[in-house]
Amino acid sequence: MVKWYKDEKTDNDIVISSRIRLARNIKEYPFSINLSDADAVKMVDDVKNAMLPKDDFIVMDVNELSSVDKLALMEHHIISPEVLNSFAISSVLMKKDESMSIMINEEDHVRMQAIFPGEDLSGAWDAMCEIDDEIESKVDYAFDKDFGYLTSCPTNTGTGLRASYMLHLPLLQKTGQIKDIVYAIGKFGMTIRGIYGEGTEPYGGIYQVSNQVTMGKSESEIMSILKTVTEQVKERERKLIEHLIETRRIEFEDSIYRAYGILSNARKISGKEATALLSDLRLGYVSGIVGLQKPKDNIYCIMMNIQVGSLQKKEGKELEGEERDVCRAEYLRSMF
Amino acid sequence: MVKWYKDEKTDNDIVISSRIRLARNIKEYPFSINLSDADAVKMVDDVKNAMLPKDDFIVMDVNELSSVDKLALMEHHIISPEVLNSFAISSVLMKKDESMSIMINEEDHVRMQAIFPGEDLSGAWDAMCEIDDEIESKVDYAFDKDFGYLTSCPTNTGTGLRASYMLHLPLLQKTGQIKDIVYAIGKFGMTIRGIYGEGTEPYGGIYQVSNQVTMGKSESEIMSILKTVTEQVKERERKLIEHLIETRRIEFEDSIYRAYGILSNARKISGKEATALLSDLRLGYVSGIVGLQKPKDNIYCIMMNIQVGSLQKKEGKELEGEERDVCRAEYLRSMF
Repeated sequence: MVKWYKDEKTDNDIVISSRIRLARNIKEYPFSINLSDADAVKMVDDVKNAMLPKDDFIVMDVNELSSVDKLALMEHHIISPEVLNSFAISSVLMKKDESMSIMINEEDHVRMQAIFPGEDLSGAWDAMCEIDDEIESKVDYAFDKDFGYLTSCPTNTGTGLRASYMLHLPLLQKTGQIKDIVYAIGKFGMTIRGIYGEGTEPYGGIYQVSNQVTMGKSESEIMSILKTVTEQVKERERKLIEHLIETRRIEFEDSIYRAYGILSNARKISGKEATALLSDLRLGYVSGIVGLQKPKDNIYCIMMNIQVGSLQKKEGKELEGEERDVCRAEYLRSMF
Repeated sequence: MVKWYKDEKTDNDIVISSRIRLARNIKEYPFSINLSDADAVKMVDDVKNAMLPKDDFIVMDVNELSSVDKLALMEHHIISPEVLNSFAISSVLMKKDESMSIMINEEDHVRMQAIFPGEDLSGAWDAMCEIDDEIESKVDYAFDKDFGYLTSCPTNTGTGLRASYMLHLPLLQKTGQIKDIVYAIGKFGMTIRGIYGEGTEPYGGIYQVSNQVTMGKSESEIMSILKTVTEQVKERERKLIEHLIETRRIEFEDSIYRAYGILSNARKISGKEATALLSDLRLGYVSGIVGLQKPKDNIYCIMMNIQVGSLQKKEGKELEGEERDVCRAEYLRSMF
């Protein structure tokens, strides 16, 4: 089963992936924050039973995962950063290709997501609905005819939907224009932020654009606005790329080739530097101005794999600061 | 005829080349500074006639050279930086392999040098003596039985000899220890400085160690002290290399491979950056810790060829700032 991030659609254009996330709660239990351990065990079992058995899903008990495993899952967008430091009774169901996952007993009883490569929100939506319907056929969701799906935090109430695109916007980041965009798209109930959720730093020019408002609009309206807004964001990044090619083509090519030269030769490299260079390289491919051979995996896949958790998981051991930088450089060279 | 700097001996160790320079003046003429144009023409002819004809030498009238040609000759150590801005009647005789050159009517009537690849001061000395004897057999040198050879500046009087080694000392430069060495070898009448003569900046960790005192010691004594002092300088650089390998091998390897990655990929590069990276790479080869393929030419040859004059001469036209950096990067890529 090929991982979603191994699909070449994640590497061809500004849009890396499309994501649908739904928040749901089970009617008969209090929200997670008020849930007793005994009820939590029962609730987690109810959801697991509603979903399983499924050959293409893996079930993980969060409290049995090592901190390295949790970190790697977070880096791969399977679990949220909040889960890293939580001791709640909690399970995660993950599709083997990592395209779908269900966190049980996180902020809400059920937080499920589908991530599809490239620009394919409908694909992610359809896949998500299938799972959502399946669970709903076995449990009663907390639903109010006026408010819609009820959630632990009111900002998710209504559709419980967070639809998003993951975008590579290195030039909007470098020029600082990303700030204008945050402001502009806010008016449409949309937001743009780092890929590990609220308050996280942008990482290698990678952002997620998503709806901020979950209530008062239908799911299809939300997705439609997201698509329109994203088109405009893409257009602005494309204009910057064109301008760069027109006015400073050599500097642009130089940055791409230097990135390639360093990534394929370094013996030691920090995550920050490597990510910035991978971002330069990806921009080179997206802009189409260089004929450089592509690495063995997609750039975004490599960006995830050079992070601390994923790197340690791959090595099968904990790594100290310098060891990490050396392993990261080794892995990067193996990709070129 | 293979140029001296294409000999692999320039690339194997700390010593790049060995140089002998002699300053001589013709008895019947005033020193260059007091020479009339009419006498200058006559004196230049006398020396040329004493030397020529020789199939392996090229004669150049300095005032007929373009400024690019003069710059390239200076970068290749054929003429001194002083000649660049001089309008004196002056000729240069250059052996086609660039290992020997004679400047006529520079600071002294005759300034002749032999540069031999690697550590071969005797080779350079023997070659120089042959030329010196040949000229002396045709003209009367200004010589005083007490003072020795008379020169325009008293700092050259006596032997008129400047014997030197060109050394690659990147770690003594980086650690700042080069300053201690300047002080220490001064006591032996020796000096260490940039390769384009007095007051020039060190360039890519490259220095020349030479005698400062030309009087009161015989030529063989001067060369003997130079050899001893140079052994000690080399030893200090080698100790720093060993220490670096022992304590920070990965950083060291990293710097070498990154240098290689950038030099072989950049699309635009300044002379300063390229020289620093070539220096890192050369240190990698000299230390023997990396198995990287060597460039098509010796590093020092490349270091000369990326300089502004040599680059423009190779391109056959004048180049503006950015064009230079682009041509330099092209040339560097062609070397890997």
